[in-house]
Amino acid sequence: MKENKYDEAEFFARYSGMDRSIRGLAGAGEWHELKMLLPDFTGQRVLDLGCGFGWHCRYAVEHGAVAALGIDLSQKMIGEAQKRNALPQIEYRCMAVEDYDFPPQAFDTVISSLVFHYLESFGDICEKVYRTLTPGGSFVFSVEHPVFTAYGPEKWYAGPNGENLHWPVDCYFSEGRRVADFLGEEVVKYHRTLTTYINDLFRAGFAVTGVVEPQPAPELLESVPGMRDELRRPMMLIVAAQK
Amino acid sequence: MKENKYDEAEFFARYSGMDRSIRGLAGAGEWHELKMLLPDFTGQRVLDLGCGFGWHCRYAVEHGAVAALGIDLSQKMIGEAQKRNALPQIEYRCMAVEDYDFPPQAFDTVISSLVFHYLESFGDICEKVYRTLTPGGSFVFSVEHPVFTAYGPEKWYAGPNGENLHWPVDCYFSEGRRVADFLGEEVVKYHRTLTTYINDLFRAGFAVTGVVEPQPAPELLESVPGMRDELRRPMMLIVAAQK
Repeated sequence: MKENKYDEAEFFARYSGMDRSIRGLAGAGEWHELKMLLPDFTGQRVLDLGCGFGWHCRYAVEHGAVAALGIDLSQKMIGEAQKRNALPQIEYRCMAVEDYDFPPQAFDTVISSLVFHYLESFGDICEKVYRTLTPGGSFVFSVEHPVFTAYGPEKWYAGPNGENLHWPVDCYFSEGRRVADFLGEEVVKYHRTLTTYINDLFRAGFAVTGVVEPQPAPELLESVPGMRDELRRPMMLIVAAQK
Repeated sequence: MKENKYDEAEFFARYSGMDRSIRGLAGAGEWHELKMLLPDFTGQRVLDLGCGFGWHCRYAVEHGAVAALGIDLSQKMIGEAQKRNALPQIEYRCMAVEDYDFPPQAFDTVISSLVFHYLESFGDICEKVYRTLTPGGSFVFSVEHPVFTAYGPEKWYAGPNGENLHWPVDCYFSEGRRVADFLGEEVVKYHRTLTTYINDLFRAGFAVTGVVEPQPAPELLESVPGMRDELRRPMMLIVAAQK
């Protein structure tokens, strides 16, 4: 069964309290870097895989996209998207990314923010996204960084006084299921190496045009407690590819 | 001054005792993966930056290259290359990678094995390699992986009984000088993020065509003590790019 933690009331409440949920893109530490890798949306049809609250769909339409489809497994997410980011050009659909049929050459850009580490196979998605893109189309996504997911618990290794000693990496080349502590609950994620992310794209036929490990925006470094630790290890990976 | 540890007698003796020095390419755990990213050398002129004992120059010529130039900062390395891997098509030259003049469009392929983490700037090299390649030419190199170099000492975090607990990552986004323990000596290396390696290539004008974190060859996993730990964190990064 597909992981659908986000439809559990308590977990969703906690997710809704995150800065990126309340403030949208401005509250997402990586947005200033993700934005740089996005194409010119003018006249484009855009697909957002795992759209969450719909912030990216809205951004695409506000920057020229003529249509955006956001899909998400969680009914609660789709509900919030329809409340917060409804626009006539946007359609939100509640379904699993794995169940979408990816019609051929139906989109000019496919985006996905922090979703693929919940999916067991990335290669499958690459093939489907490739098929659904028009020639020259863009595929831009963020995921949790392999350095972040490798060991499993997604926690700093702590010293005797609870201080963050360093980030532990282990089992890097053993891909697959991990149980991470996220928002106070056990959440299943899938670890993949950087090699797999990049080579699944190549195998599907993509050219890789951007690879960025985002650093927090300078203003967040000063204002958000603990944000300086984000400079100690990469937490996210953003990749841009072209059909 | 450029790091030239390899001309110190004791250090060089220890380096010469490594499997990759004695057995050449067959003794290098990453060779089976690096080889896959190399182009067809037939008729090519090849430049090897930091050629060491000359194993890669020899391989290129034995696979069709009409000329190979290997440069290395260490006179001892060049001496061994001339002893072990001399062929009429190969020229070895003792000089720093940074001091080579990289004549325009002089080479069809540029290779480099485990050298660039000794250099302070990677962007400079990218520009120079781009200039010296013919259009369509290949640039294939390996470096120590950013996960391996980030923290500095390049050692496992040890448990109370000296066992390898996990690999520590810290200071990832603080690029620059590190002092690592290598072959029993302190060696200066330069940490760079994956983002820098890839984007310096893009900035120079390259297309990135391959990104691989090599895993040890299966037969080495069984036969070499400690090799299984190489599956616990990435140690090397191999990148292929095209002009």
